[in-house]
Amino acid sequence: MARDEGRGVVALSFDYGQRHRAELRAGERLAERLGVTRRVVLPLDLRLIGGSALTSDIEVPKDTAPDPSRIPVTYVPARNLVFLSLAAGLAEVSGAGELWIGVNAIDYSGYPDCRPEFIRSFEQTVHLATREGVESAGAGRAGLVVRTPLAEMSKADIVRAGAALDVDLSLTHSCYDPPDEEGTHCGHCEACALRRKGFQEAGVADPTVYAG
Amino acid sequence: MARDEGRGVVALSFDYGQRHRAELRAGERLAERLGVTRRVVLPLDLRLIGGSALTSDIEVPKDTAPDPSRIPVTYVPARNLVFLSLAAGLAEVSGAGELWIGVNAIDYSGYPDCRPEFIRSFEQTVHLATREGVESAGAGRAGLVVRTPLAEMSKADIVRAGAALDVDLSLTHSCYDPPDEEGTHCGHCEACALRRKGFQEAGVADPTVYAG
Repeated sequence: MARDEGRGVVALSFDYGQRHRAELRAGERLAERLGVTRRVVLPLDLRLIGGSALTSDIEVPKDTAPDPSRIPVTYVPARNLVFLSLAAGLAEVSGAGELWIGVNAIDYSGYPDCRPEFIRSFEQTVHLATREGVESAGAGRAGLVVRTPLAEMSKADIVRAGAALDVDLSLTHSCYDPPDEEGTHCGHCEACALRRKGFQEAGVADPTVYAG
Repeated sequence: MARDEGRGVVALSFDYGQRHRAELRAGERLAERLGVTRRVVLPLDLRLIGGSALTSDIEVPKDTAPDPSRIPVTYVPARNLVFLSLAAGLAEVSGAGELWIGVNAIDYSGYPDCRPEFIRSFEQTVHLATREGVESAGAGRAGLVVRTPLAEMSKADIVRAGAALDVDLSLTHSCYDPPDEEGTHCGHCEACALRRKGFQEAGVADPTVYAG
């Protein structure tokens, strides 16, 4: 979407101790295919903090109906806050006026740090935290804008938008617990369930290889 | 101060690519002396982001009068935002109700992320970012509190407070560009100038070894 708006893109991925490297490989393939100005992979060992099925020995739930009243065990403490904070530092150094993040608050797992109210609050905080924010305020400019184009879209809408932009969606990654790093999806975790349903509802052929 | 209030302490330091390890050594000595429940040192290579004299080849200014209208080159983009975000994750996993940070907004270098308005905004954001924040709000509790006991104190006040608590201030570290890791201070950077002045104004003997 950013490339389609004519933006130059600095792509940032986090090597944060997640239980697989498949999403980092997917980020690499997508960055290459879409043409980015620079790709940064930041190592950050969140296993030292722990508390999540994605960074510790807690098991990823399979084939279970999500309980909408509970934040699931795949929640990583303060993850998007940490990611956005580091991205804000990189944005400042890169001279970027916008920070894009693909959070979704419709077909998602109920993570607090995917909600629009969190994103808006973060934007206020980052304006107070950085040199760029202080200088923008002094000059009457708005400062760094956090863009979340997927926030209010269903998974089906996201699939449709990707297809309309001719994105090769086989390069994208959703699975929490992939059996390999080549893009195969387990087919049984909550992220796979949401992905499958998205393609079905969009009426777009699903190019994903599911192991089961 | 936290120990004096009877708190158990999880001490968090960042090995972030700073140009010296003297402050990490100082953190280790202090944690040992004061008795902490747990000490975590989180590696985080902010050199990949850059943009600061503390993490890149930009020179640390010596013997120069600070220009209060400019944020100095020792500013690290979004550093306290990044540090506090990671600390919030650790606080949640540790079951900590408070997060303490030694920022100072009086005798300081003019960093935006040391100001009380940034800290208060961060507190709001973290309440929206974490499971703990959501559960606290649901139960009518306040959520994580960010304590900044040094924020409104002069350096002299801080020296006096440390002396009153019998802290061995020779174990503490201020210097931006120390000549060794044993606690020697350069004596010429802005942090050394503020430290020296603080001891002088407090009328407390300065145990710091200055190289010059």
